[in-house]
Amino acid sequence: MTSRKNLRQKLHHIIFDYDTIPAKAFDLVLIVAILLSVTAVMLDTVSSIRIGYGELLYGLEWFFTILFTVEYLIRIYASDSRARYIFSFYGIIDLLAILPTYFSIFVPGTQYLLVIRFFRVLRIFRLLKLVKFVQEAEFVKASLIASSRKIVFFLFFVLVTVSIIGALMYLIEGEESGFTSIPKGVYWAIVTITTVGYGDIYPQTVLGRTLASLLMIVGYSIIAVPTGIVSAEMAAMHEKIEAGNKKEVSCCESTKHDKDACFCKICGRPLG
Amino acid sequence: MTSRKNLRQKLHHIIFDYDTIPAKAFDLVLIVAILLSVTAVMLDTVSSIRIGYGELLYGLEWFFTILFTVEYLIRIYASDSRARYIFSFYGIIDLLAILPTYFSIFVPGTQYLLVIRFFRVLRIFRLLKLVKFVQEAEFVKASLIASSRKIVFFLFFVLVTVSIIGALMYLIEGEESGFTSIPKGVYWAIVTITTVGYGDIYPQTVLGRTLASLLMIVGYSIIAVPTGIVSAEMAAMHEKIEAGNKKEVSCCESTKHDKDACFCKICGRPLG
Amino acid sequence: MTSRKNLRQKLHHIIFDYDTIPAKAFDLVLIVAILLSVTAVMLDTVSSIRIGYGELLYGLEWFFTILFTVEYLIRIYASDSRARYIFSFYGIIDLLAILPTYFSIFVPGTQYLLVIRFFRVLRIFRLLKLVKFVQEAEFVKASLIASSRKIVFFLFFVLVTVSIIGALMYLIEGEESGFTSIPKGVYWAIVTITTVGYGDIYPQTVLGRTLASLLMIVGYSIIAVPTGIVSAEMAAMHEKIEAGNKKEVSCCESTKHDKDACFCKICGRPLG
Amino acid sequence: MTSRKNLRQKLHHIIFDYDTIPAKAFDLVLIVAILLSVTAVMLDTVSSIRIGYGELLYGLEWFFTILFTVEYLIRIYASDSRARYIFSFYGIIDLLAILPTYFSIFVPGTQYLLVIRFFRVLRIFRLLKLVKFVQEAEFVKASLIASSRKIVFFLFFVLVTVSIIGALMYLIEGEESGFTSIPKGVYWAIVTITTVGYGDIYPQTVLGRTLASLLMIVGYSIIAVPTGIVSAEMAAMHEKIEAGNKKEVSCCESTKHDKDACFCKICGRPLG
Repeated sequence: MTSRKNLRQKLHHIIFDYDTIPAKAFDLVLIVAILLSVTAVMLDTVSSIRIGYGELLYGLEWFFTILFTVEYLIRIYASDSRARYIFSFYGIIDLLAILPTYFSIFVPGTQYLLVIRFFRVLRIFRLLKLVKFVQEAEFVKASLIASSRKIVFFLFFVLVTVSIIGALMYLIEGEESGFTSIPKGVYWAIVTITTVGYGDIYPQTVLGRTLASLLMIVGYSIIAVPTGIVSAEMAAMHEKIEAGNKKEVSCCESTKHDKDACFCKICGRPLG
Repeated sequence: MTSRKNLRQKLHHIIFDYDTIPAKAFDLVLIVAILLSVTAVMLDTVSSIRIGYGELLYGLEWFFTILFTVEYLIRIYASDSRARYIFSFYGIIDLLAILPTYFSIFVPGTQYLLVIRFFRVLRIFRLLKLVKFVQEAEFVKASLIASSRKIVFFLFFVLVTVSIIGALMYLIEGEESGFTSIPKGVYWAIVTITTVGYGDIYPQTVLGRTLASLLMIVGYSIIAVPTGIVSAEMAAMHEKIEAGNKKEVSCCESTKHDKDACFCKICGRPLG
Repeated sequence: MTSRKNLRQKLHHIIFDYDTIPAKAFDLVLIVAILLSVTAVMLDTVSSIRIGYGELLYGLEWFFTILFTVEYLIRIYASDSRARYIFSFYGIIDLLAILPTYFSIFVPGTQYLLVIRFFRVLRIFRLLKLVKFVQEAEFVKASLIASSRKIVFFLFFVLVTVSIIGALMYLIEGEESGFTSIPKGVYWAIVTITTVGYGDIYPQTVLGRTLASLLMIVGYSIIAVPTGIVSAEMAAMHEKIEAGNKKEVSCCESTKHDKDACFCKICGRPLG
Repeated sequence: MTSRKNLRQKLHHIIFDYDTIPAKAFDLVLIVAILLSVTAVMLDTVSSIRIGYGELLYGLEWFFTILFTVEYLIRIYASDSRARYIFSFYGIIDLLAILPTYFSIFVPGTQYLLVIRFFRVLRIFRLLKLVKFVQEAEFVKASLIASSRKIVFFLFFVLVTVSIIGALMYLIEGEESGFTSIPKGVYWAIVTITTVGYGDIYPQTVLGRTLASLLMIVGYSIIAVPTGIVSAEMAAMHEKIEAGNKKEVSCCESTKHDKDACFCKICGRPLG
C-alpha cells in the first residue's frame, strides 16, 4: 500500500514537477518525442517520401501514439486531482494528441490532425524554467483581452463591409470575372481587404477596379485600427508596470506622511 | 382611444426598449430573422443551390421583406417622434433593408443589395446590453475622428504618388505587360502600394521592376504613418480617460486636504 | 506707370492671397482646371476613349497647357520677388506642370508626365483655409523627419537582407522557377518581404519554400519596426503638445515662486 | 625595426581610424570597391549581360577578391590585437567576403554568395561619422532585444497555428487544389497569414475558402501584436531617454534647492 503510494508520488514528481533532474530529463525526452512524431506525420503526406518510407512512418506513428497513450494514463494515475487534470487545458490537449490515430482506423486521413500535438510543446516553456517567458505571455494575453472588445467591434464592421462590397462586386463583375456568387465575392473582398491578394479572382471592369481600389485603400488605412488598439493597450500596461516599479523613489523620505495617507501629498507618489 | 394609446405604448415598449423580457425576445427574433434573410440572399447566388432551392429562397426573400416592411411600419407607428425615427441612422437602414426587393421587380438583380440588412444587426449590441461595447465603439470612433484630418492628408499624398507612378509605369512597361492605360497603371500602383499584389498585372522590364521595388518599399514603410497616427491618438485618449477616471474617484471627498498638499494623500489625484 | 503697378498689385491679390472673394474664386477655378486637365491626360491613354475622343482630348491638353503657361507667366509678373517664386516648391511644380506638353512635340509620350499637375492641387488646402490641415501636415512631417534616420537604418538592413536572400534563391531555385538572375531574385525578395506577393515568380523546391517562409515571417515581424518608430515618435510629439497645453494648471497658485523659478518647486509644473 | 613599427602604425591609422584625411579616403575607396564588386557579381547572373561581358566580369570578380584578400591580410598585420580582429564581427565578415570566389574554383556557383560583401558597407556609417546613426541603431536594437521574448512567444503561436491550419487544408482541399502534402499546406498557411498571397496555391472548395478567410482575418488582426509590442517598447525607451536627458541637464547644479523642494525650480527635474 505504501509502496504503491510511493510509486505514485515518484511518478508525480517526475511528470508534474520541473526542478529535479529526472523531471527535466522527462520533459526533454517528451518534447523531442513530440517534435519527432509531428515531423513523421507531416513527412508521411509527402508522396515521394511515403513511397520509400511509408511503412516506417506508419510504424513510428503508432509507436508514438502508444507511447503518448501510456504517458496520458500515467499522468491520470499520478495526478493529485484526476478530474482536474483531465479537464484542464493540458489534459484536453494530451487527449486530443492521441485520439486521431485511433480514429484513423475507422476514418482514414484523420491521423493528420495529430499536428495538434504541437500544442504539447508549450511545456517547453516550463522545461526552460522561463518564468520570464510566462510573464511575457501574460503581458501579451492581458493586452489582447483588454483590447478584445474593441477588436470584436472592429471585426464586425469589417465583416459588414466585405459582405456589402462582395455583393456589389457580384453585381458589377458577374461570372465572367470569376465572381460566380455573393459568397465568392465576400471571399474575394476578404482576400483584398486583408491585403493577401492571391489573384485567383480579380476585377476586370473599370467600375470593379475602382471599387476594388477603394476597398484596398480602406483596408490599408484601417489596418491601423487593431494595431493602434493593441499598441495603446500595451503602452498603458507598460506604464502601469513602470508605476509599480517606481514605488522605490525616495524623494520625500524626510516628509512625515500622515498615517492614513496612501499617496505622498507633496509629490503624489503612491506610498508602499 | 385609450386602448389605442395603450397598444401603441405596449408596442413602443417591445420595440424600442431593451430591458424587459418581451423586448429582449423581440430583438432576438429580429436578429435571427435578419441573419437568415441575408444568408438566403447570399445562397441564392450560388448556382448549384439556386437550381435546387431557387423557389424556396425566392419565397423566403419575399417573406422576410414583407415581415420587415410590417415591422418598419409598426416602428413608425409606435415611435414617439415619427420624423425623428424615419430620418435617424437606424430608420434609414431599416428602410434601405426592404427597398431592394421591391426594386427587383423592375430591375432584376438589385435584390442582392439586401445584404445591407447586415447593418441592422448592430442592434445586437443593444440586445446584449453591452453598454461597454458602445463605449468601445465610441473610443474607436473618437480616435478615428481625431486622426481623420491627418489620414486624409496622408491619403492625398498616396493618391498623388500612385497617379505619378501609374503614369510612369504606363510609359515604361507599355501594353505588352498589361499596362494598357494610365488608369490601369494607377490601379496597379494601388494594388502594389497597399501590398495586395494580385499578380494580374506586373512589371516585366528591368526599369519597371526597379520602380515597382521602390514603390513596394515606400508602401511598406509608410504603412507606419496611418498606424502611428491612430496609435498615438488612441494612447492620448487612453491617458485622458485615465485622468478623467481619477477625477471621478470620490474616496477623498471627506478628507480635508492639508493646505500645502498638491496631491490628495489618499488617492494621489492632483488637487486643483 | 501707376496703373501698371495697380494692375500688378491687383493680380497679386487675386493670385497669391486667399481671403478675398476674387482670390477664392481664382483658386477654385484653378483647381477645377487642374483636375479636368489631369483627367483628360489619363483618359487619353484608354484606347477605347482615344479612338472616339482623341482629337478633343488633344485639344483640351493644349488648351489647359496654354492656360497654365499664361497663368505661370502672370504669376512671375505679379510676384513680389520673382526669383523667389520661380525657385520655390510651388514655382518649380508650376513649371513642371506645363513642360511635358511642349516636350511631347519632340518626344511623343512625355505628355503623360502631366499627371505631375496633381501636385498643384496641394493649393486646395490653402483654398479651404484649412490652417488645421497645415498643422496636421506639419505634425506628420515632423514625426517622419524625427524618425527618418532610424528608418534609413532599417531600410539599409532590409536591402542587405533581400540582396543575400535573392542571391541564395538564385542558387537554390535556378532558372526553371523564374529566378533567372540575382537581380530578379532580389526583386522577388522585395515582393515577398513587403508582403506584396504578385505570384509571377515563386519558389518551387522544398529548400526554396523553406527559405521563402522564413523571409515572409521576418517581413511580417519587422513591419513592426518602422511602425513602432513612427508611433513612438508621434506619441512623444503628442505629449510635448499636451505638456505645452498644460501650462495653465493652477494647482500651486498660492505658493509664491522664487523670481528665478522656471518650474514650480512643489509640483514640478513649468511656470509661464 | 622602428621603420617596420612605423609602417604598421601608419597602416593602422589609415585602416582603423576615421578622422584623418587618408583614413577617410581609404574608407571611401573601399566602399566604392565593395559596391562595384557586388554589382559585378549581380550583373554576371543576367544572361544577356554575361554573354557580352562575361570575361570582363569574371576578371573584375578576381580583381576585387585579390584586392580584398590583400586588404584583409594588411588588416590582420596592422591590427593591435590580431585574434580580436579576426574573431570580431567585422573580421568574420571581411573573411566571408573573399572566401566564395576561392570556393568557386571547386564548386561553381558559390561565387554568388559574394553578395555578403554588402555587409562590409556597414562601415559607411563610420565613414560619415554618423555617431547619431549609431545611436539610432542602438535604439532599434535595444527595442528589439527588449521585445524579443514577447515576439518569440508570438511566433511560436503563429507556427502552431499555421501547422494545424496547413494540416486541415491538406485534408479539406487535397491534391487537386495543389495542397499535395502537409508541409505544402503549412507553406500556404504562412503565405496567407503573412498576407503575402502569391496565388500559386489557393483554396477551391467552400470549406477551404471559409477556413482561409478565417486565417486571413486572424493574420490581419494579429499583425497588431508584434507591432504593438515594438511600439510600446519604443515608447517606453523614448521616455527613459527623455528622463535620462533631463537628469543630465546641469542648469541647476549651482542653484541651492530649498529643503521642501521635490522638483528643481529651474529645470523641473525631480530631486532625488
